[in-house]
Amino acid sequence: MQQDAPKVRLFVDAPLGDGAAVALERAQAHYLFTVMRLGQGDAVALFNGRDGEWRAVATEAGRKGGALRCAALLRPQAEGPDLDLIFAPIKKARTDFIAEKACEMGARRLIPCLTRFTNAERVNVERLRAHAVEAAEQCEILSVPQVLAPAPLAALLDAWEAGRRLMVCDEARDAPPAMDALRAAGREAGSGPGPWAVLIGPEGGFAPEERARLSEAPFVTRVSLGPRVLRADTAAVAALALWQAALGDWRA
Amino acid sequence: MQQDAPKVRLFVDAPLGDGAAVALERAQAHYLFTVMRLGQGDAVALFNGRDGEWRAVATEAGRKGGALRCAALLRPQAEGPDLDLIFAPIKKARTDFIAEKACEMGARRLIPCLTRFTNAERVNVERLRAHAVEAAEQCEILSVPQVLAPAPLAALLDAWEAGRRLMVCDEARDAPPAMDALRAAGREAGSGPGPWAVLIGPEGGFAPEERARLSEAPFVTRVSLGPRVLRADTAAVAALALWQAALGDWRA
Repeated sequence: MQQDAPKVRLFVDAPLGDGAAVALERAQAHYLFTVMRLGQGDAVALFNGRDGEWRAVATEAGRKGGALRCAALLRPQAEGPDLDLIFAPIKKARTDFIAEKACEMGARRLIPCLTRFTNAERVNVERLRAHAVEAAEQCEILSVPQVLAPAPLAALLDAWEAGRRLMVCDEARDAPPAMDALRAAGREAGSGPGPWAVLIGPEGGFAPEERARLSEAPFVTRVSLGPRVLRADTAAVAALALWQAALGDWRA
Repeated sequence: MQQDAPKVRLFVDAPLGDGAAVALERAQAHYLFTVMRLGQGDAVALFNGRDGEWRAVATEAGRKGGALRCAALLRPQAEGPDLDLIFAPIKKARTDFIAEKACEMGARRLIPCLTRFTNAERVNVERLRAHAVEAAEQCEILSVPQVLAPAPLAALLDAWEAGRRLMVCDEARDAPPAMDALRAAGREAGSGPGPWAVLIGPEGGFAPEERARLSEAPFVTRVSLGPRVLRADTAAVAALALWQAALGDWRA
């Protein structure tokens, strides 16, 4: 069906369905009708992260707003693995990058996490979400990771969801190779991987008490990402790739 | 030995060895003595990608130049896997990012490659090298990938080195999952992985004749990186991570 997909893709919040009308905000109308030079009757691919991807036609093309009407389902919504990415915020450009990559790599939620050595500039949740949305629009992805409010690491661990496992990428060199550890965890889990999260530590590393707490948590799988120090954004992509390959939708 | 390592690391071209004197260029002297506020007698960690990492002491600290003398070997040079990253240049910021990530992920050479659908801005080899050097300096890495001059894909394949295998990340969905394909190739190869290269295609994909040629090449292992479209920079990190985990130095 991809041959029929319009070249312009747009993420919207509104519900999508056969015949559904979608009102456009000013910025969206500007993008479609001024930047992309579409007009009334032209087609756009719409997705909202919930209802699949729809071919929609512009029914009203104004400078300050407009409307589209859903005409045909292009792709049904497909749920990826239940995978969170928890990361300690770093410099703004690299944090933006992590949001973009989390989307491409199929994370379902993105959770900024404050640790003792987090060099936290303020985390702008809306900005992270915008980067994830842009990645989804450009990469033909149907799901946009939910971006949660920043939370201290201890609070996340205190409120840990029963049954969710946590892959901790630890720069201490005594953890087993990630691929081996994940495959072993997968064999224990049986049929499906179940819910997981990946935790990328701050650039200064975890504090000793944080490392101790993570080591003791029964839901944690500590892994090593090789012999070189990785920046946090690199570690995020690498860890998600290994998780998807071992347990997620990159398998056969 | 890392406790004794000076905090400031500097990449130099000069040979390093016990008692070796290293002259500093103006920019290096500016960085050490003005930006980092070091002075005569202060220690720096030096590496050149060949002779390991050395503790060196400033013997001359001027505004326009200076000199260091190697005092003690901190870490011997360790050779990583023989792994090239071949990539089609993309937007400048993402190409810079690929150079940085190639270094962190342990690629030995970085080869810009021109394909039919490469949207080639000019490739600045020196700029790519500077990004790789910066990553090595900041991430405590001893090796800096060599950056080769851009070459057309056909020329690279015409002159392909005997015995080197090529992992081709193909967005066509009929290739096997990367991890499976790499492990199978590893079993065939026997003891060590031998020389490899990873090829990341252009954002527009390979042209049909390029894909045909790659499919026929006996040294090619075609792989899939999952069901989502990845930007080229994401694909580079993910592919290198899977290669290192399957065949490289991320194994036990």
